[in-house]
Amino acid sequence: MTTSTAQSRASGHSEVPATMRAAVLKRQGDMAMETLPVPKLEADQVLVKVAAVGVCGSDVHYYEHGRIGDYVVDHPLILGHELSGRIAAVGSDVDPGRIGQRVAVEPQRPCRKCRQCKAGRYNLCPDIEFYATPPVDGAFTEYVTIQGDFAYEIPDSVSDEAAALIEPLSVGLWACERAGIKPGSRVLIAGAGPIGIIAAQAARAYGAAEIYISDIAEDRLAFALKHGATHALNAGTDSVEGLDVDSFIDASGAPQAVRSGIKAVGPAGRVILVGLGADDVELPVSYIQNHEIWLSGVFRYTNTWPLAIQLIADGKVDLDILVTGKFTLAESEEALKAGKQTGQLKAVVYPGR
Amino acid sequence: MTTSTAQSRASGHSEVPATMRAAVLKRQGDMAMETLPVPKLEADQVLVKVAAVGVCGSDVHYYEHGRIGDYVVDHPLILGHELSGRIAAVGSDVDPGRIGQRVAVEPQRPCRKCRQCKAGRYNLCPDIEFYATPPVDGAFTEYVTIQGDFAYEIPDSVSDEAAALIEPLSVGLWACERAGIKPGSRVLIAGAGPIGIIAAQAARAYGAAEIYISDIAEDRLAFALKHGATHALNAGTDSVEGLDVDSFIDASGAPQAVRSGIKAVGPAGRVILVGLGADDVELPVSYIQNHEIWLSGVFRYTNTWPLAIQLIADGKVDLDILVTGKFTLAESEEALKAGKQTGQLKAVVYPGR
Amino acid sequence: MTTSTAQSRASGHSEVPATMRAAVLKRQGDMAMETLPVPKLEADQVLVKVAAVGVCGSDVHYYEHGRIGDYVVDHPLILGHELSGRIAAVGSDVDPGRIGQRVAVEPQRPCRKCRQCKAGRYNLCPDIEFYATPPVDGAFTEYVTIQGDFAYEIPDSVSDEAAALIEPLSVGLWACERAGIKPGSRVLIAGAGPIGIIAAQAARAYGAAEIYISDIAEDRLAFALKHGATHALNAGTDSVEGLDVDSFIDASGAPQAVRSGIKAVGPAGRVILVGLGADDVELPVSYIQNHEIWLSGVFRYTNTWPLAIQLIADGKVDLDILVTGKFTLAESEEALKAGKQTGQLKAVVYPGR
Amino acid sequence: MTTSTAQSRASGHSEVPATMRAAVLKRQGDMAMETLPVPKLEADQVLVKVAAVGVCGSDVHYYEHGRIGDYVVDHPLILGHELSGRIAAVGSDVDPGRIGQRVAVEPQRPCRKCRQCKAGRYNLCPDIEFYATPPVDGAFTEYVTIQGDFAYEIPDSVSDEAAALIEPLSVGLWACERAGIKPGSRVLIAGAGPIGIIAAQAARAYGAAEIYISDIAEDRLAFALKHGATHALNAGTDSVEGLDVDSFIDASGAPQAVRSGIKAVGPAGRVILVGLGADDVELPVSYIQNHEIWLSGVFRYTNTWPLAIQLIADGKVDLDILVTGKFTLAESEEALKAGKQTGQLKAVVYPGR
Repeated sequence: MTTSTAQSRASGHSEVPATMRAAVLKRQGDMAMETLPVPKLEADQVLVKVAAVGVCGSDVHYYEHGRIGDYVVDHPLILGHELSGRIAAVGSDVDPGRIGQRVAVEPQRPCRKCRQCKAGRYNLCPDIEFYATPPVDGAFTEYVTIQGDFAYEIPDSVSDEAAALIEPLSVGLWACERAGIKPGSRVLIAGAGPIGIIAAQAARAYGAAEIYISDIAEDRLAFALKHGATHALNAGTDSVEGLDVDSFIDASGAPQAVRSGIKAVGPAGRVILVGLGADDVELPVSYIQNHEIWLSGVFRYTNTWPLAIQLIADGKVDLDILVTGKFTLAESEEALKAGKQTGQLKAVVYPGR
Repeated sequence: MTTSTAQSRASGHSEVPATMRAAVLKRQGDMAMETLPVPKLEADQVLVKVAAVGVCGSDVHYYEHGRIGDYVVDHPLILGHELSGRIAAVGSDVDPGRIGQRVAVEPQRPCRKCRQCKAGRYNLCPDIEFYATPPVDGAFTEYVTIQGDFAYEIPDSVSDEAAALIEPLSVGLWACERAGIKPGSRVLIAGAGPIGIIAAQAARAYGAAEIYISDIAEDRLAFALKHGATHALNAGTDSVEGLDVDSFIDASGAPQAVRSGIKAVGPAGRVILVGLGADDVELPVSYIQNHEIWLSGVFRYTNTWPLAIQLIADGKVDLDILVTGKFTLAESEEALKAGKQTGQLKAVVYPGR
Repeated sequence: MTTSTAQSRASGHSEVPATMRAAVLKRQGDMAMETLPVPKLEADQVLVKVAAVGVCGSDVHYYEHGRIGDYVVDHPLILGHELSGRIAAVGSDVDPGRIGQRVAVEPQRPCRKCRQCKAGRYNLCPDIEFYATPPVDGAFTEYVTIQGDFAYEIPDSVSDEAAALIEPLSVGLWACERAGIKPGSRVLIAGAGPIGIIAAQAARAYGAAEIYISDIAEDRLAFALKHGATHALNAGTDSVEGLDVDSFIDASGAPQAVRSGIKAVGPAGRVILVGLGADDVELPVSYIQNHEIWLSGVFRYTNTWPLAIQLIADGKVDLDILVTGKFTLAESEEALKAGKQTGQLKAVVYPGR
Repeated sequence: MTTSTAQSRASGHSEVPATMRAAVLKRQGDMAMETLPVPKLEADQVLVKVAAVGVCGSDVHYYEHGRIGDYVVDHPLILGHELSGRIAAVGSDVDPGRIGQRVAVEPQRPCRKCRQCKAGRYNLCPDIEFYATPPVDGAFTEYVTIQGDFAYEIPDSVSDEAAALIEPLSVGLWACERAGIKPGSRVLIAGAGPIGIIAAQAARAYGAAEIYISDIAEDRLAFALKHGATHALNAGTDSVEGLDVDSFIDASGAPQAVRSGIKAVGPAGRVILVGLGADDVELPVSYIQNHEIWLSGVFRYTNTWPLAIQLIADGKVDLDILVTGKFTLAESEEALKAGKQTGQLKAVVYPGR
């Protein structure tokens, strides 16, 4: 599988401009539009003309704080990792017939060679590169590159927005997978934000019979009941302890919600922590021991795109209902701020507009 | 399966006295020898003449504090749940041919009818009765009853002491089972007390290639290295973070050992908490999430006796080396106090002597 | 848990007649109505007044051939193991509050004590008793007994017929469980009879995205497409090899369908054989090896009733559509013959009418 | 990760001759020594100077019949896929520090991009290339190339022969893994040839308590008892049906052994078919159904080298005892014929001698 960059550049970049516009995070709180060279293709990559990019809480966190944990924005960074688009060029090892294909992008690049990758856990690859995680650029721009097998063709019935939001949907599907949700399962989800609502829809697709969702915002609970949840609980007033659910998925990141959620789980149940909160949280360890509960988290996902596309195409999951704001590439900074307003769930940026 | 207690009493109790001696915990810190009626047999039970009883930390805890969590010694209680003996009588549904059989006793009585029991998780049965847990009496006495299928025949090659200590061995085996230990696994065990040493032997039986054990007591570490562990770490001076083990079994109950042990686990690894400490412990949640580590505990065990007997008979596990003190039934109180002295691992009471 | 039959008889049989009518298979091909004593209750049992009984292929086989494998009808036998009814009396260990409850009956009695039972595989219990399997009587009668935990309360929204047909539904659910069907799965089912159609509905409930069903009868295929299947294949003309499905469930028992169905499965896929055919069948072993396919069967089911009731109540499965013939107890023999006619799927007997 | 073959050729092939000697299978039954160019390195590959190559039954089959199933030797082919050696050169993406390293080679090249590869089942990759499988050359030569991560460093304590035989050991380990062998398992292995003996050693390493091996050759049974098996059965005279083992591994490929072996398995047990026999074999399907036995096979292996190296280094597996014949590269044809003689287990070719 020897490759020649020269070759792929030749074959690929016909019809592709040399430069592109990008919304760049210069440093904490400082976004600017810049003109950058279109990235070069490697032999196994495709060049994707970005159609839609969803704004994720992590993008907002990088914008506001300039870092997430050990990942520091010490050089200019392009944010955005929830994206769809159209293949504009392909590397020398990729079928040229894919040019023009509409795709949803899985924004990670595992090494494929380490113990984790070869065991099918490529999301845990220690050398993985992930979009919009310093120093790897993301998708608030016109063109991005990704390994060909991480760009999944989507049918016309799937909108650009829905295709972009397969990334957060994948988090929800992966959480349900790890939570062991099956037909008849009783599930509690803490947090009725985008991830919580997506997790509720994913749980429904996994066959959950009862899907309890808890939040302090009544409007979010009402929305969640319309789109996946079967029961709504006010985190401020309703107690979840003793609910005896099979699985608890935390999409809130709130220590108190995690603690009480764990105590909502019955014997041999599972707890999956999706929400990001403090590095260290006090947990009810003796409860976990006495009920032999399995607790874990999700770190991104593996092999979820094909299922996600199927679920959207079959109408079992509806992502379009999450989109509450639409922005041009030049408006990326407003898009990052949009989430703060009530009623806002998911902002989407359209680099092509 | 109708039963007649009259019948079974008749068939069973021939050769069995009407009364027996027992060491009774009257209240916190107050043990007394008493004469009690030999317990009545139910149709599916066997009456076991107790040969040896190991002293467990929980027995000591009940003696010293009069309670463990919600379980309070508010009535006189017979302690002891690690036992072996000989079948003296059988209920009407049990093969009389078993009378005289040497047995190791699994000291629990699940309901067999609930969701957990019927799913093979009888240790999580909400209605389970367990020896020496208020209000259920234990084995510091001459005779006990147990359902026939929870009394396992042992070969002559297994000593009374080893047969009694199958109970703690079962905790270690169940921990290894849940920790997913397999040939080649690298394992960390925190705490080189009886459970830690047993867990090390169990891990070796499961094929672990590297078994790290940590403790602050050098003499315990030295002993552990002789009996199962491959590497010893001084919990006071050696750091375990970054060891990148596949599994971590905590047998210390020390919050700091739990926290650092979790960070010794590599991606997709497992953490099993055996030691009992505080109800709530601060855990490195983001580490668990980022490495998709599975964390759980053990609550007793299921279906471990046959394997345990096999491992002892095959010499793959050696429990006799744990016995550091031998006591008569009348000396039960001293037996409960023996564990405090250095070098003491496991005290055994012999009701027949 | 000592029990007194006297007691339970007392408490239980008030309002229950001493005798009942039953359709008895005297010998191969010879059914007769008889008056028999109402069965006695054991302490842990309930007495169920039978409302509806489905006719299964095995009932027909016993009627026509007087045997199935090693099970020979050498004494008069009451057939029927798909049933629902109402609790008329309870044993001394069962809550009297259950009297009057509408229930679906899981018609098996495991020993609860063997290795298989205690591992949660009670369907594989070597000492299990199963309705309508010599010498155990079944449900073509007015009253039957069953252990209380094997009689599941059903909501009013579930009809007597649907509740009775939870038994075959359980076979389908268990097949899907063992076939590893998940959201997005592609499944092939061979045979569009009652079990095939039920399996298709079960696969849909498990989230299967594509459900291919094959049969030689076009009317059955058309019906299956209406009730669970997404694609129909004519077993006579369409080839299934190379379909590359994730799972294949055989509900035909036809050796040729099994062989070609196996070759329809992709790498690491699963094959579950539900249909009963010859004891020995020539299978494409090298194909199974080269694709590391897992092949197994179902022997009844475990713990499926709660899920089945949920799926029916939620409208995810519809069993009423299977009922094509209704008969009184006296018409049991016609009911057994009804299946032979075209268009007939499931005959139901109503002992109360 | 762009690569330059020019570069790697430069960096790599210094100190490496331009040509090498190879034993080439020209056509069925016709081997010849030839001088060929040393293969070119790709960026992610290493060039291995072959030290030892084991002769596998498949090599012999290609030599004698010119084909295995659909794989036909229609062009000259180098046989041999059980090998060890020393890294002589590395591609541009591989650490030059590896030059000189002693390695065991996993002789397969998956695509790393398909559904199977990304799920951790790279052995089932439809595009996989495997040594000595037309048209891919094998190791009866002086130099071979392999992706760097498929060449595993071995300690000095592992001999060249043992390192080469990690390939068949991997088949045995993979079989035990899929057979679900655990501490205490009771296992039946049919066939006491090299694979059967290796499987017995692997089963012992997995903790099996009882390892029954069956064969018609008493000398092989005696040898197997010395090296892994705990019980020997004469396939001609001893019946295995009803043995009630947990797992059955067929290493014989004999239909009758497979059929009777399946009936030796207890409820919920597993059957793994390793031996290659007829494409189609008549199996006791109703037995499999009634006992819910899982049956599958092994197609090579995934991720077994690290464990294999550990087991050899720890002395838990001994492969050197299998070597019964040693040959130079020029004697490859005799090596292929050696297996036919009694007492011969494994012939090894040394290209360097």
